[in-house]
Amino acid sequence: MTAADSATTTADAPARRGRPGYDRDGILAVAVQLFNEQGYDATSVSDLARRLGLAKSALYHHFSSKEELLSVALEAALGGLEAVLDDPRASAGAASDRLRFVLTGATDVLVAQLPSVTLLLRVRGNGPVEQAALERRRVFDHRVTDLVAAAQAEGDVRDDVDAAVAARLLFGMINSVVEWYRPGGGVDGGRLGADIVRIALDGLRTS
Amino acid sequence: MTAADSATTTADAPARRGRPGYDRDGILAVAVQLFNEQGYDATSVSDLARRLGLAKSALYHHFSSKEELLSVALEAALGGLEAVLDDPRASAGAASDRLRFVLTGATDVLVAQLPSVTLLLRVRGNGPVEQAALERRRVFDHRVTDLVAAAQAEGDVRDDVDAAVAARLLFGMINSVVEWYRPGGGVDGGRLGADIVRIALDGLRTS
Repeated sequence: MTAADSATTTADAPARRGRPGYDRDGILAVAVQLFNEQGYDATSVSDLARRLGLAKSALYHHFSSKEELLSVALEAALGGLEAVLDDPRASAGAASDRLRFVLTGATDVLVAQLPSVTLLLRVRGNGPVEQAALERRRVFDHRVTDLVAAAQAEGDVRDDVDAAVAARLLFGMINSVVEWYRPGGGVDGGRLGADIVRIALDGLRTS
Repeated sequence: MTAADSATTTADAPARRGRPGYDRDGILAVAVQLFNEQGYDATSVSDLARRLGLAKSALYHHFSSKEELLSVALEAALGGLEAVLDDPRASAGAASDRLRFVLTGATDVLVAQLPSVTLLLRVRGNGPVEQAALERRRVFDHRVTDLVAAAQAEGDVRDDVDAAVAARLLFGMINSVVEWYRPGGGVDGGRLGADIVRIALDGLRTS
């Protein structure tokens, strides 16, 4: 984008605040927002360029394709979630403590990276980028199931719920946060991980 | 559909099993499946007629519009969920027992009416039918929140989790079932309500 472009923009469309200032992360953020709004498949590069107020050529200067935007966004979400499982606190100690760490950590990743995790959770497997993301989700789910099973084997988690079912329900609760949590909307995102652990591990019942 | 139509169908397209036999419920079931597959907005009456192997006129004999199909499907889901809250077991007795009944009952509705609840959970508020469904979901959520708050006030449910957050997380867990549960897929749908109550009220921890 040239200085002349910026000047024209400011004169023609004052409502497009910050238009000249997009770097790679800024473009990615707008792309993920647009994918979440109208669906990845239904969003064209032209749609994105229009939303950004950029020429397609300026967009291609930063990202080679729509698939690259998807890939980078899903990597942010999956990499963040996998980092929780790869943390030493998820691999050493009592399995129930590790499970507690993973539930809290995953919730924190979700709250911190709400748009990219939202995108990840809507992936249905169209194309190789989505297929690869689904495969990483499957591996993640299996690792959580193994952790629940380990906590059951150690006697700290009830074994009258199937480990795979428990893992799916626990992450169902965590993932539901993308449906209703909005930063600044009255719910403290920093507490959600602890709330989920209270419900899932300790239980809501007092007696 | 006439007997002559049926005979022609059988001769021309033997792979379309049951094609002549669509009644209102059969058409609705196929419509909900198609809406879930490709999105309600993206599905035309022509798409649906093609999937059913029916002429559009035959379809209009049963349903006046695509909106009527949506409305009837959402009514099945919402009506089923609301019936749980309207059951005497949800309104008399200790609030924690009522909450237990509602969590189990809602899960059972979801398992029994998986396609229509899936459709309901994807509604985003486009148009009056979806707006009305969202409003009924909001009322439902408020009633569940009130139930959690009542159980907290009676001292049977921990009050260090906000009642509205707890209600959302509980139904996040329940609603997640549409994402992964498939009838005949190895998980006993009839157990899920009990599993969810075990996790949410009793907690996974044994100690």
